[in-house]
Amino acid sequence: MTTYLPRTAIIGAGISGLTSGKMLADYGVPYTCFESSDRIGGNWAFGNPNGHSSAYRSLHIDTSRHQLSFRDFPMPDDYPDFPHHSQIKAYLDSYAEAFGLLDNIEFRNGVTHAERLDDGGWELSTERGERRRFDLLIVANGHHWDPRLPDFPGTFDGLEMHAHHYIDPRTPHDFSGKRILVVGLGNSAADIAVELSSKALDNTLTLSTRSSAWIVPKYFAGKPADKYYHTSPHIPVAWQRKFMQAMQPMTAGRPESYGLPTPNHKFFEAHPTQSVELPLRLGSGDIIPKPDIASLDGETVHFVDGTSSDFDVIIYATGYNITFPFFDPEFISAPDNRIDLYKRMFYPGIDDLIFAGFAQAVPTLFPFVECQSRLIGAYAVGRYRLPSTDEMYRTIEADTQYYTGHMLDRPRHTQQLDHYLYEHDMRTTEIPAGRRRAAADGGATWAQVDTHEAAAAHAVAAGAGEQR
Amino acid sequence: MTTYLPRTAIIGAGISGLTSGKMLADYGVPYTCFESSDRIGGNWAFGNPNGHSSAYRSLHIDTSRHQLSFRDFPMPDDYPDFPHHSQIKAYLDSYAEAFGLLDNIEFRNGVTHAERLDDGGWELSTERGERRRFDLLIVANGHHWDPRLPDFPGTFDGLEMHAHHYIDPRTPHDFSGKRILVVGLGNSAADIAVELSSKALDNTLTLSTRSSAWIVPKYFAGKPADKYYHTSPHIPVAWQRKFMQAMQPMTAGRPESYGLPTPNHKFFEAHPTQSVELPLRLGSGDIIPKPDIASLDGETVHFVDGTSSDFDVIIYATGYNITFPFFDPEFISAPDNRIDLYKRMFYPGIDDLIFAGFAQAVPTLFPFVECQSRLIGAYAVGRYRLPSTDEMYRTIEADTQYYTGHMLDRPRHTQQLDHYLYEHDMRTTEIPAGRRRAAADGGATWAQVDTHEAAAAHAVAAGAGEQR
Repeated sequence: MTTYLPRTAIIGAGISGLTSGKMLADYGVPYTCFESSDRIGGNWAFGNPNGHSSAYRSLHIDTSRHQLSFRDFPMPDDYPDFPHHSQIKAYLDSYAEAFGLLDNIEFRNGVTHAERLDDGGWELSTERGERRRFDLLIVANGHHWDPRLPDFPGTFDGLEMHAHHYIDPRTPHDFSGKRILVVGLGNSAADIAVELSSKALDNTLTLSTRSSAWIVPKYFAGKPADKYYHTSPHIPVAWQRKFMQAMQPMTAGRPESYGLPTPNHKFFEAHPTQSVELPLRLGSGDIIPKPDIASLDGETVHFVDGTSSDFDVIIYATGYNITFPFFDPEFISAPDNRIDLYKRMFYPGIDDLIFAGFAQAVPTLFPFVECQSRLIGAYAVGRYRLPSTDEMYRTIEADTQYYTGHMLDRPRHTQQLDHYLYEHDMRTTEIPAGRRRAAADGGATWAQVDTHEAAAAHAVAAGAGEQR
Repeated sequence: MTTYLPRTAIIGAGISGLTSGKMLADYGVPYTCFESSDRIGGNWAFGNPNGHSSAYRSLHIDTSRHQLSFRDFPMPDDYPDFPHHSQIKAYLDSYAEAFGLLDNIEFRNGVTHAERLDDGGWELSTERGERRRFDLLIVANGHHWDPRLPDFPGTFDGLEMHAHHYIDPRTPHDFSGKRILVVGLGNSAADIAVELSSKALDNTLTLSTRSSAWIVPKYFAGKPADKYYHTSPHIPVAWQRKFMQAMQPMTAGRPESYGLPTPNHKFFEAHPTQSVELPLRLGSGDIIPKPDIASLDGETVHFVDGTSSDFDVIIYATGYNITFPFFDPEFISAPDNRIDLYKRMFYPGIDDLIFAGFAQAVPTLFPFVECQSRLIGAYAVGRYRLPSTDEMYRTIEADTQYYTGHMLDRPRHTQQLDHYLYEHDMRTTEIPAGRRRAAADGGATWAQVDTHEAAAAHAVAAGAGEQR
C-alpha cells in the first residue's frame, strides 16, 4: 500500500517550526520552511533582524534546562540550570545542524499571504514575490513578537515603549537618571524592572500592575523550583492546585508582603512570575509598587488608588498579540488572543492547516512544541486522523474548561496550558484515538486530500517515518 | 555624695561613636568626639571624604530594619525592609540631630596619636596639631575601613583592587567588557559579583572562595529572613545550631548545588552570606565558581583545583583589618584581627579605655553598639565596675569559647558574636554584676581614677544620668 504524503509548508523557523520540520523529516514528509529572517531561532535569536525577538541582553530562560531539553536532543551537560538566551540559540543551532534542518529552510523568504484554495490546499505568496502551492500548512510564526499595548485614557508626554524593544540599560535609549514606570508583572516586567532599578543607574523605578501576580523563586531549597511545580496527571488537578496553594507561603509569601496589590486570582490559577530579585528590590525600596493605571496626563500618571507620580519613561511589559499577518483577518484571526483550536492545533473545518506552538505552556514551550510535532508527523502520514467537526468543538470547550476554567478571563491567560497534563492527554489518549480513527478509515488520509497533480511525485512507501 | 565624671574622648563619629556619645550625654558625662571626616556616619557615609566608607552605590543593609532600629529611636515607618545606605545615613543624621550630638563632635579633627599617661588618663594629639587631655578614652574608629589583602604567590599583571574601593560598574574603573575575578564570598563579594555579572555589562565574572559559605536569602516565605534567625538565650545554643542546620535545606540548599566548594564549616557555624541573587547568577552561568587561588602569573590565575583562567581585573572582597592608627603598635594592636577584650570592650589592665563596636555582631552592629553604649554610660558615672584583671582574663576565654569556639579560626571570624546572646548576658548578668561591684566599692569609681586638676570642674550631682 502506498500513501500520498502532503507537500507541506511551515511558516517560521523558531522552536515550533524547527521541531515540526524535524518530525516531518523523521516521517519522510517533504516540507519547506519559510523564514522571514536570515537565521533560525525566532524569539531566541537575540537581535533578530526580522524584529521578532523579544529577548533582552540579560535574558535567561525562566525554566530550568531539565524541563527545557527536547527529549531527542538533550542540552549540553555544561549548561547552567537557567541558560542564557545565547545558549538557547546555540542549542537550537546545534539541533538544526544535527537533524539537517537548514536544508529545508528558505531564509529571507517569509510568507506574506496564505490563501486557501477552493478544493483544499494552499497558495502561499512569499517575500521573494513567488506563489507556491502546498497541500498542508503548518503555522509556526510564534506569539511573542507583536507587542500588545494597553489603552489608558489621556496621553503621556514622555517616552512610551513596549518591553519588546527593550535591550539593555543603554539600548535603545539611555535608561539612567530617569523616572521609569514599568507596566505589567510578568517575567519580562520583573526582569526589566529589576535591571533598571539598579542603584548604579540612578533611576527611580515604579511598577504598576493590574492583576498583580504570585511571585515564585527560580530556586527552592537549592534546586530549580520548577522541579517542584510538576503537575501529575494521576491526581485530580483541583486537588493539586489546592496543595500548591497550601504550600505557597513556604516558598515566596504573599505579594502584599512586598507592597504589591492583592492578586485577583489564587496561587497556581494563573502563570506565576518567576523572580527571586523582584521581592528583594521591592523590599529594598528600589522598586515602588503601584496598582493599575487610571489615566495619563502629560508627564503625570494617575493610579487607581488615587496616587499619582511623574515619569520620563513608560515601558509596557503587557504581553503580545497572537497575529497571523499572512491570513485575511476575516478568514482566521485571534481577537483578544482567542482562537479555538482542537488540541491547540486544528481549526475545525480546515483539516489541511495545523498551528504549532500556540499556547502559554507551563513550564515552557519547548517540550510542548516537541509533543505537538509528534502529532504533526503522524497526521501528515495519515497515522492520525481528526474526529468530526462537532466532536472537535465539544472537545475544545471541555479542554478550555480543563486548562483555563479556573483562570482569569484575560488575553494573557487565554492560551494558558499545563504541559504535563497536555502531554499526558496527547500520549495516552489523543494520539491513540487518532490512530484508531485513521485505521478505521484505511489510513490513507492524504489520498483524499491530495488532489494536486504534483502529489504523486511525493508518494513514498507507507510507514517510512518509522524507520529512524 | 558627689562623683567625679570623667572627661571623655570618643574617637570616631560612626554608629559606635554616636551611640556612645548619646548615652554619655544621657548620663551627663562631658565628652568630645573626634572625627577625621567632615560628617558623621563613618562606613555609612557613602563617599566619605576620609576614605573610611566601604559602601558601594547599590548597597542595601543586609539586616532588616526591624532588627536594625536603635531601641530609643525607631526607623521611619516608610523605610523599606532593607534600607539603602543613603537611608541609613539619613537615619543617623536624624538620630544625631534629635539628641544634639553634633555639638560635641569636632569634625576634621581626627586623633593622630593617643598616649596613655603614667598615672592614667590620656593625651591625644589631633589633626589640628593640638594636644588634649582626657580621663576616659572610647575607641570607636570602626573595623570596616582598612582593607585586608591576601598574599598569593606570584604577581598579577592586571588591575588589582580591594572591594573597599568599589563604587559602581563605572567607578572607580570602567568594569565592562572585562574578565573579572572577585575573591571572597562575604556579602560584599556576593553583591559586587552579582552587580558586575549583569549581562548588560558584557563582563565574564568568576568568583573564587577559600572557605566557601552558606548562602541564605534575605527573604523567606515573604518575610525578612532574619526574623527567623533569632537565637534564644533560653535554649542551649548548641541545640539551636543543630536545629538551624536541620532547617537549612528548606531555605537555600547546599552551596555545592550552585557549583561552590563545600564549606569547611557547618551551617550557622560562621556568618552566612545573605544573597538571593548569587545562587541565581551561579545557576544561570553568569558567575563562574572557583575554589581558592593557588598562584598568580601575569594575567593568569591558577586555582587550587588545577584549573586556571586569564583575567583583566581582580577585586579582593577579603575583609578588613582591625587597626588603631593612633596607638603605638607595641602598646595595643590586633594582629590577625585578634584582640582580647572583656565583653568586647575592656582591655584588661587599662581601665580608662573602652572599645565600642568591635565585633562582627549577628544580625548587625546597630543594636550591639547601642547595648554597649549603655554599659559605657554606666561605667562613666561609676555605676558599673570591672572585676579583677584575673577574672577578666578568665571570662574572655570563656566568652570566646561561647561565641566562636564552634567557628573557623580565621581573621574574619575572630570577632563573630551572636548579639541576641550578648545582649541577654549584658542585660541580665554583666551589668547587674558590675553594678553590685560598684556598690561594694562605694560607687565613686572615678574619684580614684580622676586625679587631674580639671576633673573637679566636671563634678556633678551623682545620678544625673537617671534623670532622662
